[in-house]
Amino acid sequence: MNKQRVTLNCDMGESFGNWKMGSDELVMPWVDMANIACGFHASDPSVMSKTVALAKHYKVKIGAHPGYQDLVGFGRRSIPHTPAQISEIVLYQVGALKAVCQYHDVPLHYVKPHGALYNDMMESEAIFRAICEAVSIFGIPLMILATSDNQRYLDIADIYDVPLLFEAFADRQYQEDGKLTPRSQANAVYHQPEDIYNQALQIATYGSVNTANGTRLSLEADTICVHGDNPESITLVQRISQAIAKM
Amino acid sequence: MNKQRVTLNCDMGESFGNWKMGSDELVMPWVDMANIACGFHASDPSVMSKTVALAKHYKVKIGAHPGYQDLVGFGRRSIPHTPAQISEIVLYQVGALKAVCQYHDVPLHYVKPHGALYNDMMESEAIFRAICEAVSIFGIPLMILATSDNQRYLDIADIYDVPLLFEAFADRQYQEDGKLTPRSQANAVYHQPEDIYNQALQIATYGSVNTANGTRLSLEADTICVHGDNPESITLVQRISQAIAKM
Amino acid sequence: MNKQRVTLNCDMGESFGNWKMGSDELVMPWVDMANIACGFHASDPSVMSKTVALAKHYKVKIGAHPGYQDLVGFGRRSIPHTPAQISEIVLYQVGALKAVCQYHDVPLHYVKPHGALYNDMMESEAIFRAICEAVSIFGIPLMILATSDNQRYLDIADIYDVPLLFEAFADRQYQEDGKLTPRSQANAVYHQPEDIYNQALQIATYGSVNTANGTRLSLEADTICVHGDNPESITLVQRISQAIAKM
Amino acid sequence: MNKQRVTLNCDMGESFGNWKMGSDELVMPWVDMANIACGFHASDPSVMSKTVALAKHYKVKIGAHPGYQDLVGFGRRSIPHTPAQISEIVLYQVGALKAVCQYHDVPLHYVKPHGALYNDMMESEAIFRAICEAVSIFGIPLMILATSDNQRYLDIADIYDVPLLFEAFADRQYQEDGKLTPRSQANAVYHQPEDIYNQALQIATYGSVNTANGTRLSLEADTICVHGDNPESITLVQRISQAIAKM
Repeated sequence: MNKQRVTLNCDMGESFGNWKMGSDELVMPWVDMANIACGFHASDPSVMSKTVALAKHYKVKIGAHPGYQDLVGFGRRSIPHTPAQISEIVLYQVGALKAVCQYHDVPLHYVKPHGALYNDMMESEAIFRAICEAVSIFGIPLMILATSDNQRYLDIADIYDVPLLFEAFADRQYQEDGKLTPRSQANAVYHQPEDIYNQALQIATYGSVNTANGTRLSLEADTICVHGDNPESITLVQRISQAIAKM
Repeated sequence: MNKQRVTLNCDMGESFGNWKMGSDELVMPWVDMANIACGFHASDPSVMSKTVALAKHYKVKIGAHPGYQDLVGFGRRSIPHTPAQISEIVLYQVGALKAVCQYHDVPLHYVKPHGALYNDMMESEAIFRAICEAVSIFGIPLMILATSDNQRYLDIADIYDVPLLFEAFADRQYQEDGKLTPRSQANAVYHQPEDIYNQALQIATYGSVNTANGTRLSLEADTICVHGDNPESITLVQRISQAIAKM
Repeated sequence: MNKQRVTLNCDMGESFGNWKMGSDELVMPWVDMANIACGFHASDPSVMSKTVALAKHYKVKIGAHPGYQDLVGFGRRSIPHTPAQISEIVLYQVGALKAVCQYHDVPLHYVKPHGALYNDMMESEAIFRAICEAVSIFGIPLMILATSDNQRYLDIADIYDVPLLFEAFADRQYQEDGKLTPRSQANAVYHQPEDIYNQALQIATYGSVNTANGTRLSLEADTICVHGDNPESITLVQRISQAIAKM
Repeated sequence: MNKQRVTLNCDMGESFGNWKMGSDELVMPWVDMANIACGFHASDPSVMSKTVALAKHYKVKIGAHPGYQDLVGFGRRSIPHTPAQISEIVLYQVGALKAVCQYHDVPLHYVKPHGALYNDMMESEAIFRAICEAVSIFGIPLMILATSDNQRYLDIADIYDVPLLFEAFADRQYQEDGKLTPRSQANAVYHQPEDIYNQALQIATYGSVNTANGTRLSLEADTICVHGDNPESITLVQRISQAIAKM
């Protein structure tokens, strides 16, 4: 069991210009940390400002959510970058959001890469290092996926003096090696609210998940990633939030 | 005459992806301040990083050069924005460049809007205020056009606690009211190196320019904007720089 | 009264990447003409292809809906262009959609500019001419706003051999001079379904609208622009469509 | 030996907004076919129009040069797309250029994918098929890389009724299997004008190249790709053009 109560984090501020996405107003009251898009895969300076203001109102911690520069692909397509370019796009986006935070007089608390950049970071040590190098100048933690080998990432991040936050997913199936079941496979994503609720509570209470094979996998997670895309999921976030609050 | 020696500032870092613009390597040694584009009208995170490194190498002060989000128009087309949107696009771009500066361990010294945003700032008090509001959070000066009524702008900027830097143009003809002759008119831009050299030296030495009508106009300018687009103009920047250094 | 039954046209295909906008599937069955965005202010090649396929399914005529290149502003901000540039951005977008139509083996029927480009076309003869010049190569009509002086536009379009289609708005208030009440004024847009329904039927039946002052204004309109942004408006489009079908 | 004289093709129209690239005016007189960028990886509607006009002036055949939507990466980064999306981005871009051609009253002659899209097409049959499907609606040929197994591509293209044009590179080293030596290896690109000249002439005269191992490789090529990026390369294009003209 984690000593500190696990938190809930959620992707926010993914609207763009006239296009709305998500129900930030309804989810924000129930989460602890808002991963706010920075304009490369979603959002724009105005959406960022509104989302920071909303997070401030609900005293939610703000994280920068940088991604590949790919609006039409929503940052979900892996685009080849050199490690230096990775550092540069992260610096750019995090710096931009940090200024918006300063404008609203709230701190920027952490960085969590988005989509394909997040996946590439978990797969490629060069990309993980490049992101650490960029994040290090902000003096804040980097949020990554909790795996069965957190230490491997901690050792590298230490070189850059970057603290790590580990997150687990309430709605994703885990494999025995601690990896997420790829989305291409059946059962990769849980859709039943009870399944998601149960996995969230198991992570929060016991620091574990049940894998695809039915074995129990220990996962040291600081935070659980939740989604608030539709009315049903918002209700679920609220239930999870209230259950964790009572722990 | 200005008490402090006038400085030279130049737009830099205007390349984008594979497209090169300007000869930053050749101009940087001869100027005091580099106005570095921030990705909305020109540049990208990699170009920004290279340009900041180059400025650092030559101990040139770095200014953020934010513009309208309009790559194809190079930020030279006025695009309607609300004042809040103006603040937001300035915050975003300046924050992004500031992070790149931090990465290279150099300070960001000032902000100078680009192109149509610069012109709109000089014409519209609402836009000038919106820019001041954004710049205020960085605690650095804003560079604007020196006119015959600098005080008007100083009074407004004071409200936001933003120091101003005033710039004059070596290669633009001034009118009696202190405004630049619009580019649509003949003689708006000087092309003869001697004309540009002489106006630069007159600004630096006497704090004045000769207007279209031949009268002398006082201009309290902290800095002169020069350009280094071609070999001839680079030679000229060098000459002006060396002449000012001897003052 | 118009000899030919008035048609209904509606903006469609305004989604972009992962961002959905509108309820094209629900509105398409009830309109005659779909103005399909071409990627500059909204849409992308995939959305265009899906929207063309949907229009084909319901035998709805397809129009190209080109706009200024401004995703974040949704093409609603007027961006300065030379007349040649106007022709070029219209050629580009209409050509792109035409190819998508050919792929689905349906004709492209007309062009209707979007947002700020539409407004600028009605205000500036140079822009109207530039659009006519581009549209002329496709051999299809251009849709513009019906005013009390349609002839003025017909005379110019004749030079370019471009037929015109005139549209009226069911949900906008008209002034005595035949112009729309600017959106900045109260009552510019009707929100009551009955008001919109009545104006649509009056246009369809009598070729007239009641102006802000209560006078009757003749409007020779070939088509009425309707919107399907929410459930209520979709119901209204259906009612208008069914009423017109009985004429 | 090819029955028909081999032609020279060159990438053109790769400027973007204020950024110039290449010396189209100097190269155009010496080539037979201009591969014109379509706005996704380079170019914009105005550059496209100017480039088409230039090609028309020199009676150069115009090809569409579509790429991935990636200005900052110049279309040189492979971005994951479904086959349907590949068809859609090709349709969009080719349709846009075709309209610009119609405006200048010249035909569009062929399609040659650019950069990473070109490479992906040669590697992935699904992508090659998706491109064939898009090109088929225009009734013009698709230009691809001549390999030692042209027939494989011809068989597939036949299904879509798309003629193929095969191109060889004057400045790239070939391996024994008919593939280009990857750019990551030494000697992948020839830099000596004589090497490039000799390989061009060998292709044009004998339909062969000498591979890295010194063996002779037969290449049935309709056209040779040349580049005109600098004064030296432009002189070289001129020499190759004049030598081929005498055959």
